[in-house]
Amino acid sequence: MRSRLLQPETPLGEIGERELVRHLQSRIPLGPGVVVGVGDDAAVVELGPLTLVTADSLVEGVHFRREWSPPRLLGRKALSVNLSDIAAMAGVPRHATVSLCLPPETTLAFVDGLYDGLLERAAETGVNLVGGNLSASGNAIVVDVTLLGEAERIVRRSGARVGDLVVLTGYLGAAVAGLRLLLQGARLDEEGELVATGMWTETSAEAVAHCLRAHLDPRPPLTFARALSERDLVHAAIDVSDGLSGDLQQLCQASEVGATIDGAVVPVDRHAAGLERARGGDALSLALNGGEDYELLLAVPPDGVGALRDLAVVWNLPLTVLGEFTSGPEVLLKRGETVAPLPAAGHDHFRTLRSDPPAAGGGG
Amino acid sequence: MRSRLLQPETPLGEIGERELVRHLQSRIPLGPGVVVGVGDDAAVVELGPLTLVTADSLVEGVHFRREWSPPRLLGRKALSVNLSDIAAMAGVPRHATVSLCLPPETTLAFVDGLYDGLLERAAETGVNLVGGNLSASGNAIVVDVTLLGEAERIVRRSGARVGDLVVLTGYLGAAVAGLRLLLQGARLDEEGELVATGMWTETSAEAVAHCLRAHLDPRPPLTFARALSERDLVHAAIDVSDGLSGDLQQLCQASEVGATIDGAVVPVDRHAAGLERARGGDALSLALNGGEDYELLLAVPPDGVGALRDLAVVWNLPLTVLGEFTSGPEVLLKRGETVAPLPAAGHDHFRTLRSDPPAAGGGG
Repeated sequence: MRSRLLQPETPLGEIGERELVRHLQSRIPLGPGVVVGVGDDAAVVELGPLTLVTADSLVEGVHFRREWSPPRLLGRKALSVNLSDIAAMAGVPRHATVSLCLPPETTLAFVDGLYDGLLERAAETGVNLVGGNLSASGNAIVVDVTLLGEAERIVRRSGARVGDLVVLTGYLGAAVAGLRLLLQGARLDEEGELVATGMWTETSAEAVAHCLRAHLDPRPPLTFARALSERDLVHAAIDVSDGLSGDLQQLCQASEVGATIDGAVVPVDRHAAGLERARGGDALSLALNGGEDYELLLAVPPDGVGALRDLAVVWNLPLTVLGEFTSGPEVLLKRGETVAPLPAAGHDHFRTLRSDPPAAGGGG
Repeated sequence: MRSRLLQPETPLGEIGERELVRHLQSRIPLGPGVVVGVGDDAAVVELGPLTLVTADSLVEGVHFRREWSPPRLLGRKALSVNLSDIAAMAGVPRHATVSLCLPPETTLAFVDGLYDGLLERAAETGVNLVGGNLSASGNAIVVDVTLLGEAERIVRRSGARVGDLVVLTGYLGAAVAGLRLLLQGARLDEEGELVATGMWTETSAEAVAHCLRAHLDPRPPLTFARALSERDLVHAAIDVSDGLSGDLQQLCQASEVGATIDGAVVPVDRHAAGLERARGGDALSLALNGGEDYELLLAVPPDGVGALRDLAVVWNLPLTVLGEFTSGPEVLLKRGETVAPLPAAGHDHFRTLRSDPPAAGGGG
């Protein structure tokens, strides 16, 4: 029985917390390995032998804006940014809790759209939603997901060795290009279809839609990452969330090594590169410093690259050898004959906000 | 080596995210059962056989105000509200992640104070901090803690049976009295010592300090709850976070029973009752509807109450039999000769905010 209060445009201030909790509970299925799902003091799950846990928030005005993030895509992304972290440990994602801070004027349609995305993405990736928390907030929506995973064997950031190759999955730069397009008025609808190209003409529609999707609905290489856990091909891994330059430095610091990568081989997303060149920009810089790509950066022993490539073919996943890990400690970028330090120019939440207060964007 | 940036009054906007992450990481020890702590893509822990997970947020302007919540006490409470949920399942709390949303003008002193409280409370309760997330926010601080626990046997909300006794630990009403005192200008300092009595005179200082501490630094009966998991004395449990009337109704709904409780025996905190009577208020209403007491409400078979009392004596924990569970479905309150339905008048985030916009308070 659906309460007469539960109309799509009803603000939460009229529905009330308990009614909303009951409504959301009725939407969430009980999955495998879940002993107690939503609706008790805590969820109870079966996991093992190792339990992975990661948490990541999407904050309105920082990571998204309501006017450009359809709630369904926001729900998908809130889970995806956490899936990326479990993937970077070669873990299997299993159970998630969702903490929402919502201003009282938020509508039920927004919350239901958000849960459409969360439930859909959870179903795609074999994750159970097992609980969470609802709280009012003054004026900004916060979607905070904690994701539990399991593994028998994990891949850490700290395992890279001198001589290992720096290997990247996929292409870089589309997500940050998408963020720029959003700032210029380009939009996707709830279904991820292009509804406004912003300052671009219809001839760029495919590239615009591709970059918007990369920003609003990222797809980390989850099943490839899961396959890594079953093989001993990779010494270290990190997900590229803050930008290649920053995340490579993180990996190097954790492993106490340096790295040299070749700018000429950095795989820039072709749509992002096309748009960037059209506006006279530097596509490589987009790929080095953009952030939110949610690809994997791996340290691979040279004799393991062949087997890794064979594996990636199964998922049609491009792999690029960017360079190699060195005794360091510097992270260097080769551009033609020049080799120079690569500054970690990735996203910094507190600094970005200071210089650009009401903007949005930035890795998890 | 402490960076010269890391001075207590430096705003986070100048320190930057990476430096802050490094600083916080250096403060967090690696505890038992933690395979990978902070600083990788995800934390890795060993847990079992059942894994409990709960999440709860403290939102500035909703659950606390910066001017009355010393950061150390805020950190303690952020963990305590989650500890209460694990206790209500009779679980053992083990590992926590902390997601912080912080405006860029937040000082390092605030974040360090918050972590002082988190680390202290974690050490008191055997919990490891294993990771989390830092994000900027527009203007409100959000402290979101996810707590993992473990258990061999759990106590759910749904196990209450007709004829079971309604049993409560501790006393009610002090936390909501404390909230009212905060609104009237009473204050504790960082160490939990009284620094302002607000509208009350020094003769009420003990009562004022007691109620402020109940609100700002709640102490759920954790070790008693843990002992429950080793015995089969209790059919169902819930923590009293939203208020006795609301939480009793939740327990009844989950168990598909009703309940009748006796207003004459509801244990009102004596300090809260004294202050409430001095202002001409109804102390019982404070206890029935106040919220944030973080005591346990239990369904206990009549022949198990004796053993439960013996157990509670070990912790010097008062137990009160409030009434009994009935075939229901109503929850009734006996006051003298009158028996009337007890409306679930506990806290509702979205509704409270609507009627009283910039206030603070309310259960997790």
